[in-house]
Amino acid sequence: MVIHEMTLEECHDALAQANFARLACQRDGQAYVVPVYLIYDGKYLYGFSTLGQKIEWMRADPLVCVEIDDVKSQNRWTSVVVYGRYEELPDTPEHKAIRLHAHALLQKHAMWWEPACVAVEHRDSPNSLTPIFYRIHLDRMTGHQGSPDSVEGQPAPPTNARNWLSSVLDRVLHPTSFTHRRRDARHGWG
Amino acid sequence: MVIHEMTLEECHDALAQANFARLACQRDGQAYVVPVYLIYDGKYLYGFSTLGQKIEWMRADPLVCVEIDDVKSQNRWTSVVVYGRYEELPDTPEHKAIRLHAHALLQKHAMWWEPACVAVEHRDSPNSLTPIFYRIHLDRMTGHQGSPDSVEGQPAPPTNARNWLSSVLDRVLHPTSFTHRRRDARHGWG
Repeated sequence: MVIHEMTLEECHDALAQANFARLACQRDGQAYVVPVYLIYDGKYLYGFSTLGQKIEWMRADPLVCVEIDDVKSQNRWTSVVVYGRYEELPDTPEHKAIRLHAHALLQKHAMWWEPACVAVEHRDSPNSLTPIFYRIHLDRMTGHQGSPDSVEGQPAPPTNARNWLSSVLDRVLHPTSFTHRRRDARHGWG
Repeated sequence: MVIHEMTLEECHDALAQANFARLACQRDGQAYVVPVYLIYDGKYLYGFSTLGQKIEWMRADPLVCVEIDDVKSQNRWTSVVVYGRYEELPDTPEHKAIRLHAHALLQKHAMWWEPACVAVEHRDSPNSLTPIFYRIHLDRMTGHQGSPDSVEGQPAPPTNARNWLSSVLDRVLHPTSFTHRRRDARHGWG
C-alpha cells in the first residue's frame, strides 16, 4: 500500500461526496466522538440534531474535529480530518435563510432527520424536541489516501517495512531499559 | 427504524468483533479524531502507532474516546462509544509480557503494522520510527443499535415523526424571536 497526502482540492472533493462523518468534541479534557450526518456546501459542513450531550459540549467548547472516510478495501481508502468550529444556527428571523439552506442541503440524505428524531424518544427534557441546525467552519484540514502499490497482492511487506517490523518484534521480545533507549536516541533510533 | 440502547454485554460483543475504530483525543480544547486499528481482549483495547500528533496529545491528555460501528445499511447498524484512558506500554522489561500480548493480539489483523509503518515515511524525526504499543482502559461505554421497524420499506416517516418533521420545517420557515421561544418553553416546547 502507498499512502499519499491529499491536496486541498482532493479533500474538498471527498467532503462533497460524503454525508456520513464522525464528529469529535470535548469537555473538561474528556474527548467524545459520535457518528453524524453532515452535508458540505463547499464552505461549511451542515448538521442537524436535537439537544443532547454533543450539542451541549459543542456549545461550551466549539473547537471540534470531523473525520470522513471512504474505505473500499484494506488498501484502497481515503480519510479526511477537518479541524473546525461549531456554530449553531438559532431559530431567529436573521438565521431564516441559512436554516432554509441547511434544511435544503440535508434533504439530500433521505433519512437525515431520523437519528435525531428517534433519539429524542429516549429523552425526558422538553427541550429534547427542539430541532437544532448547526454548521462547522473549516479551519484546517488534512487528507490521506491509501492505494495498492505496484506489488499489490504480495503477501509479505516490502523490504524496508520488513526490516522495520523485524526491529519492532525485536523490541517487543528484548525490551531495553530507559538508559539504553536514550543511548539509541543519539544514533537516531530512540 | 427502531433504535435501542445496547446492553453492556452487547457492547462488549461489538468491541470483540471490531478491529477498526475512530479514536478521539484533545489538546487545549481542540478535539481530534482519526481512524485506527484497535483490538479488544475483553478488558482493554490495544493499539500500535509511531510517534505523531495522536500519541503526543494522548500522552498529555489521556481521556480519550473510541467509537466503533458496523453499518450494514441505513437502518441496520450498531455504534458503540467508549470513554477511556490512554496508557502507553513502554519498551521496558516490566512491560515485556504485556507488549507481547498486544503484539499477539494485533497480529490478528493482517496489516496492523502498515499505517504506522507507511506514515513514518513522511516524517523527519528520528523518533518517528519508534514502535509504540498502547492500550485504552474502558471507563464507561454506551451502544446503540438501529434496526428496521415493522413497516420497513415504508417511504414516509411514521406519524409521530411526520408531525415532528412538519414542526421542524415550520420552524425553519417561520422562525420565532427569542421572546417567542421563551414563551414556548413554558409550554414545554422551546
